[in-house]
Amino acid sequence: MATQHVYFFGGKKDTEGSADMKELLGGKGANLAEMSKIGVPVPPGFTISTEVCRQFYENKKQYPKGLKEQVEVAVERLEKKMGKKLGDPKDPLLVSVRSGAAVSMPGMMDTVLNLGLNDEAVAGLTAGSGNARFAWDAYRRFINMFGNVVKGIGHEHFEEAMGKIKKKKGVEEDVDLDADDLKEVVTQYKAVFKKHAKMDFPQKPIEQLWAAIDAVFGSWNNPRANSYRKMNNMKGLIGTAVNVQSMVFGNLGDDSGTGVCFSRDPSTGENIFYGEYLMNAQGEDVVAGIRTPKPLKTLSKQNPKVYKQLVEVKERLEAQYGDMQDMEFTIERGTLYILQTRNGKRTGVAAVKIVVDLVAEGKINKEDAVRRVTPELLDQVFHPMIDPRAKKGVKALARGLNASPGAACGQIVFTAEDAEAWKADGKKVILVRRETSPDDIGGMYASEGILTSTGGMTSHAAVVGRGMGLPCVVGCKDARISGKTVMIGNKKFKEGDFITLDGTTGDVFTGELNLVQPKVKGELNTFLSWCDEIRLAGKRANVSQKGMLVRANADKPSDAKRAREFGAEGIGLCRTEHMFFEERLPMFQEMIVAEDEETRRKALKKLLPYQKRDFKGLFKAMSGFPVTIRLLDPPLHEFVPHTAKDIKRLSEQTGVPTKALKQKIESLQELNPMLGHRGCRLAITYPEIYEMQVEAIITAACEAQKAGVKVFPEIMIPLVGSVGELKPLRAMVERVAAEIIAAKKVKLKYTIGTMIEVPRAALIADKIAEDADFFSFGTNDLTQMGMGFSRDDVGSFIPQYVEEGIYENDPFQVLDQEGIGQLVEMGTIKGRTTKPELKVGICGEHGGEPASVDFCYRTGLNYVSCSPFRVPIARLAAAHSVLKNR
Amino acid sequence: MATQHVYFFGGKKDTEGSADMKELLGGKGANLAEMSKIGVPVPPGFTISTEVCRQFYENKKQYPKGLKEQVEVAVERLEKKMGKKLGDPKDPLLVSVRSGAAVSMPGMMDTVLNLGLNDEAVAGLTAGSGNARFAWDAYRRFINMFGNVVKGIGHEHFEEAMGKIKKKKGVEEDVDLDADDLKEVVTQYKAVFKKHAKMDFPQKPIEQLWAAIDAVFGSWNNPRANSYRKMNNMKGLIGTAVNVQSMVFGNLGDDSGTGVCFSRDPSTGENIFYGEYLMNAQGEDVVAGIRTPKPLKTLSKQNPKVYKQLVEVKERLEAQYGDMQDMEFTIERGTLYILQTRNGKRTGVAAVKIVVDLVAEGKINKEDAVRRVTPELLDQVFHPMIDPRAKKGVKALARGLNASPGAACGQIVFTAEDAEAWKADGKKVILVRRETSPDDIGGMYASEGILTSTGGMTSHAAVVGRGMGLPCVVGCKDARISGKTVMIGNKKFKEGDFITLDGTTGDVFTGELNLVQPKVKGELNTFLSWCDEIRLAGKRANVSQKGMLVRANADKPSDAKRAREFGAEGIGLCRTEHMFFEERLPMFQEMIVAEDEETRRKALKKLLPYQKRDFKGLFKAMSGFPVTIRLLDPPLHEFVPHTAKDIKRLSEQTGVPTKALKQKIESLQELNPMLGHRGCRLAITYPEIYEMQVEAIITAACEAQKAGVKVFPEIMIPLVGSVGELKPLRAMVERVAAEIIAAKKVKLKYTIGTMIEVPRAALIADKIAEDADFFSFGTNDLTQMGMGFSRDDVGSFIPQYVEEGIYENDPFQVLDQEGIGQLVEMGTIKGRTTKPELKVGICGEHGGEPASVDFCYRTGLNYVSCSPFRVPIARLAAAHSVLKNR
Repeated sequence: MATQHVYFFGGKKDTEGSADMKELLGGKGANLAEMSKIGVPVPPGFTISTEVCRQFYENKKQYPKGLKEQVEVAVERLEKKMGKKLGDPKDPLLVSVRSGAAVSMPGMMDTVLNLGLNDEAVAGLTAGSGNARFAWDAYRRFINMFGNVVKGIGHEHFEEAMGKIKKKKGVEEDVDLDADDLKEVVTQYKAVFKKHAKMDFPQKPIEQLWAAIDAVFGSWNNPRANSYRKMNNMKGLIGTAVNVQSMVFGNLGDDSGTGVCFSRDPSTGENIFYGEYLMNAQGEDVVAGIRTPKPLKTLSKQNPKVYKQLVEVKERLEAQYGDMQDMEFTIERGTLYILQTRNGKRTGVAAVKIVVDLVAEGKINKEDAVRRVTPELLDQVFHPMIDPRAKKGVKALARGLNASPGAACGQIVFTAEDAEAWKADGKKVILVRRETSPDDIGGMYASEGILTSTGGMTSHAAVVGRGMGLPCVVGCKDARISGKTVMIGNKKFKEGDFITLDGTTGDVFTGELNLVQPKVKGELNTFLSWCDEIRLAGKRANVSQKGMLVRANADKPSDAKRAREFGAEGIGLCRTEHMFFEERLPMFQEMIVAEDEETRRKALKKLLPYQKRDFKGLFKAMSGFPVTIRLLDPPLHEFVPHTAKDIKRLSEQTGVPTKALKQKIESLQELNPMLGHRGCRLAITYPEIYEMQVEAIITAACEAQKAGVKVFPEIMIPLVGSVGELKPLRAMVERVAAEIIAAKKVKLKYTIGTMIEVPRAALIADKIAEDADFFSFGTNDLTQMGMGFSRDDVGSFIPQYVEEGIYENDPFQVLDQEGIGQLVEMGTIKGRTTKPELKVGICGEHGGEPASVDFCYRTGLNYVSCSPFRVPIARLAAAHSVLKNR
Repeated sequence: MATQHVYFFGGKKDTEGSADMKELLGGKGANLAEMSKIGVPVPPGFTISTEVCRQFYENKKQYPKGLKEQVEVAVERLEKKMGKKLGDPKDPLLVSVRSGAAVSMPGMMDTVLNLGLNDEAVAGLTAGSGNARFAWDAYRRFINMFGNVVKGIGHEHFEEAMGKIKKKKGVEEDVDLDADDLKEVVTQYKAVFKKHAKMDFPQKPIEQLWAAIDAVFGSWNNPRANSYRKMNNMKGLIGTAVNVQSMVFGNLGDDSGTGVCFSRDPSTGENIFYGEYLMNAQGEDVVAGIRTPKPLKTLSKQNPKVYKQLVEVKERLEAQYGDMQDMEFTIERGTLYILQTRNGKRTGVAAVKIVVDLVAEGKINKEDAVRRVTPELLDQVFHPMIDPRAKKGVKALARGLNASPGAACGQIVFTAEDAEAWKADGKKVILVRRETSPDDIGGMYASEGILTSTGGMTSHAAVVGRGMGLPCVVGCKDARISGKTVMIGNKKFKEGDFITLDGTTGDVFTGELNLVQPKVKGELNTFLSWCDEIRLAGKRANVSQKGMLVRANADKPSDAKRAREFGAEGIGLCRTEHMFFEERLPMFQEMIVAEDEETRRKALKKLLPYQKRDFKGLFKAMSGFPVTIRLLDPPLHEFVPHTAKDIKRLSEQTGVPTKALKQKIESLQELNPMLGHRGCRLAITYPEIYEMQVEAIITAACEAQKAGVKVFPEIMIPLVGSVGELKPLRAMVERVAAEIIAAKKVKLKYTIGTMIEVPRAALIADKIAEDADFFSFGTNDLTQMGMGFSRDDVGSFIPQYVEEGIYENDPFQVLDQEGIGQLVEMGTIKGRTTKPELKVGICGEHGGEPASVDFCYRTGLNYVSCSPFRVPIARLAAAHSVLKNR
């Protein structure tokens, strides 16, 4: 038997496809078939399969054998079903021809309507509709569309012809042309067609049909479609299908109409039937906005029969698809037709509410519910957004990297000090800087949002912004700061001017746009509890632990508390360096500029009580969960003063002459600080720093434990690249801890582990594991070193790299699984060769990114750790991984 | 049968050991046995094996069973042989006790002489020698040595006692004390012993003997010995042996004497018998320098019989060991004894001459000859050295890193401009800077040597210095520059002051020390041709190519010519960026600050003829060999001006306003330039740069080929981390090359490859290899990124790392085989999975380092490439690899 290339649809009995044949029939074709099959009124037609498209390209644009015959049979079958014939001068059958891949794909040839019209059939249509103007209008539209889609003739040529006639008639709008005028338009359009296509407009409907089919298949590989697929990372599609469907008309009079509707409210998710329609109109009239559509409930009064029918269809489709539907319908002379249905787009809030309701209604199960909500949708729930109405028609000034989601608006300030001062005056500010540094932390806390002109997705502003849940746009090349003014795009702003940032998209707007805070109801917790249920049941071949845990990166007790509210199961990374700012900075600087160990120790002693208090707060906030504390990581020059004033202050404080201070500060400078004297390298040179930190951690843990807190301290040594570094530092931690534990007379369990962030550490992880109780992959640094990218400098070329597809994603946003992923996998496998039960986690910025979370799950990591605001996203992503990988 | 722990030596028949038992008997013991066996007059004795030492430490400092008995038997046998008995009041046997591991090792307990003396035996020694002063002097020396070595009593305590007696007697020197005085000294020494050892000085010789043996074995694990082994990377030694040997005396009168001699001249290698001796003296007198020893030829007149005997011994030993011998001898009352022989230390020149002569004399074969000469010795041959006589007694002011070997002296200048100006005035200068940059190249060429206060072994100064063969000391922390003065150690220097650098050791001296240029004769070429013979015959399992080739890193035709003279088999790395300085810099700067592609192309067009000329010169100098040219690698900000004056000049040249220039220059700055916008990343952004370079290379190759040069251009794309980078750049190279080749109407073969220097590239080398004809490991960057070390900044901690053994070596000097080596191996294996015949080389600074060369050989690399001056070293090292690994 010959391969079936063509699938007919039209009524329960005659339909050959179904919803599960999307790969073969495309999304549109499969849905049309499905609707037909279950009795939804769909204009009959047929679908030519995607497989034909694949063969077309494989065989030098030749169609497979038998296609021609199958299409002819389908056309005959359609004519018979409709009781009309293509090109019939009395009552012609008209059809639409549409493309439709498995995934919706703008950029391809889309639609030819009214196919089948010709100089004779137009008379038949006039007769059939009793409306000459309608018929000639349909014909001229067809010539335009056909000319454009099939022959690539620009719309402007047709518009020019139309314009001349309108001018001649002295009218402004198309609608003011009558049937005779349109007949003249048709004549002119055919002339335009002939001029550009170098042929007469084809009069044989079957020729028109084949030309349209050729055009659809031909558009599959046009540059626009190719680049769209590339940009959207759409792989594995074999081609497009072609849908040929009989036409119905909503513009045949007041008993006709057209509309779109959603089976539930796409903004809130509430279970109300929601939509708009217009009588005596075509689909494009609803979208174009020339006439104002009416709300759907009006239809229940205007045409209760059709409305009731539509409600029934909606119920049936939602039941069938188990999801909220977005439908297009047409009423032709009182008869309802459904032209399209698909799962409706929705907001994050709606997405959660809908799946929770659908489970309650018994329409889907919990796993379906979890599968349905994407991490991107869930993320929306946690951040203020720009009111979509406020955004309408407003163009962004510039677009930077969407570093930390959510929207913010406020007055521009240019320094952290100003941010704090203005905030104290009750003003809302946006901090605008080339880049931020640890010095700016106070000002960042005081701001509504951050805009930087340089830096990438893991720049200081981005990392801190995400940690605080502070909207943040970074690396915005089109924001050029000069003193206390900034050019954003083409507009100049000074201090105090208002701007609005959208950290979710990276857009920057002028003025104050209205913001809305998504309203989260009880459904969210229900939904996340299902995620956890699935997540914690996940079994993997390569690790004994069931499911993957989600921890948070948090440096302060308040962050830890918030993280716990978001569902964090511990702290995966506490960056102790964030504890050396504000009032503690002078003491830390005193330590840095000390000329000998004794002076250093004296300064460190002053810091000890602060550190202890911080750690105690963390343990308390995370009672019952592990808390991983990373010992000092950044190079010391990040902490020293740079202005003459600050150096003088430090000189007065320490008694070190300013000249000596300046020399010391200069000597700390490094050409490539990212590869410099930092992390455990500092502790090899100045062991007393880590000794103080360990003393603070262990003392805090002992005291918290005595106060009834369940403490699980995990001490983490950063930037280890060799056993020679880890071994003596581990011994030091054990010695200091043992002394304190003995003095405090308690029993305290704690572990010592290391970051795997230097590529060499991953290479020799089997040896590193001998001295480590746990590994935590620092994928920020691992990416920097493994790929040779400075996260502070990639802004100058990474956007181009991503645009040109050299890398699919910014590797600081989405873990580079192909390369850096090898190091993570290697480190995990080698580490567990030495210690089969080695606990392995990730605490880089990738820990909250869904694709990276999935990689971590597959690689057998015990946990991911991310910023508090990403914890729910990671819980969902990890649940998705369980569903995807089992 | 019980294990033999004790090995007797003394005469041909009674000797139980031999030279090939070094592991078991230690170097000294094995040589004593060997000499005894072949009839060389050696005072008889016995050796306790290193195996005893091992068991001693394994069994909680208990000796193995049977040792006591075996030592007793050996003592009896020795007494019988000598016809004397230990402690005999009439004619006592005296012995020495010495340690001796398989490798000579200062820092361990060394020697106890005159053991066996006690209050009674001293009378016997008096009688036997007929010299009471000699006997009492021997006794007091014994007590001092025994007290010091066995009981750890400081020499100062004995000296104090001696001082009191000298004062009492009113004499200045020890030699002015008579027998009775020395008797008093013995009494006082015994008191000192008792006070500190809390026991009487042992009178039983056998007790003395066991105490000395205990002390030798006990000293094996003392901290000094341990740290010596660690510092010198001495692994796999199981312990020390103990040599007990009958004493002979050179101070028994004018028919006695002692001396040291070399079987050939250790400075020149000439085959002349060379040495010094003193009559009526002990070994230490020759060394101490109180009396001036006589040249050996005097002995031929003073005692022709002994001299003749000594010559015979020398001949015999040299024949036996097949190498130049360093011997110690004693004449006791007219009888010659040889106390020690070992392979003599020698200069590089001597080392080469000696082995070539030995082969000619039929004493060794070529392989032995090649094996004998270490790379360090060979290196000496190519560099001026500080005259050893000039260095005597002169202390270095400071020591930095020995970045580029050879010595240099000259007047200090502080800027590259000054260096050029002073040189033009006919002065010799040393350029002293914090660090050098590409701007300084001209000044570096004008200097005799370079001293920098920062930077590591692969800093700019070091790399360029080695490339030029320019002596270079870098990272000298104790050189503190301030304006136009520098403190070196504790001494202040200003411009024009003289200093001398030793780039071979890293030492810096004040003033002008005399330099000597090693004289290389024809032997060197003979020797290197043997190296090549062996090298090019090396078969490896993992690569089809026989032997490993040696190429040079050279950027200019003159360097290439020199490299070829040194035996380079091609250029492995031509750094094109070095071609953008001097008169070409303004054009390159014009390109950098251009605001659009057209202006950039215009500026590049000006550079094209220069580049073409350079490449043509390289092809010509390397006719018949491949020339690998790396396209532009460093970030653009390395080329832009920084001073107001230079910026103004560039502004005038380009017409770009200074303000805009400053902004452009600022925008090029990067926080971590090593990980920034450089290498192929530049070419993704500005393809026109590489296009110009490819045009220059291919045009030059076509033209050179037409002129009869055999060209093999290899175009190398740097810093590739992904297929997405390499693929379009390869296509660009092919396109540009094809156009030129077509236009020139020639046939030209060329290849396109890539550096593997980003860790990710090694990880995905199988994919990279699809678009690469060859790989060249850039181990400098691979080390920087893989270990997370910036070569410009490691100076602040790497010295401590090496000192504490965290890393055995500076990883920029010696390839880190454990970590980075994995990436090299992985890259090679994965690359050849895709292309089994993939050509793989290395062009990092490690290409000339012997241990790294050996690693490359084992890993299956096709070639190493190093600076021209290292080429002979690499040829030797690669030959050693063949011998070692077959």
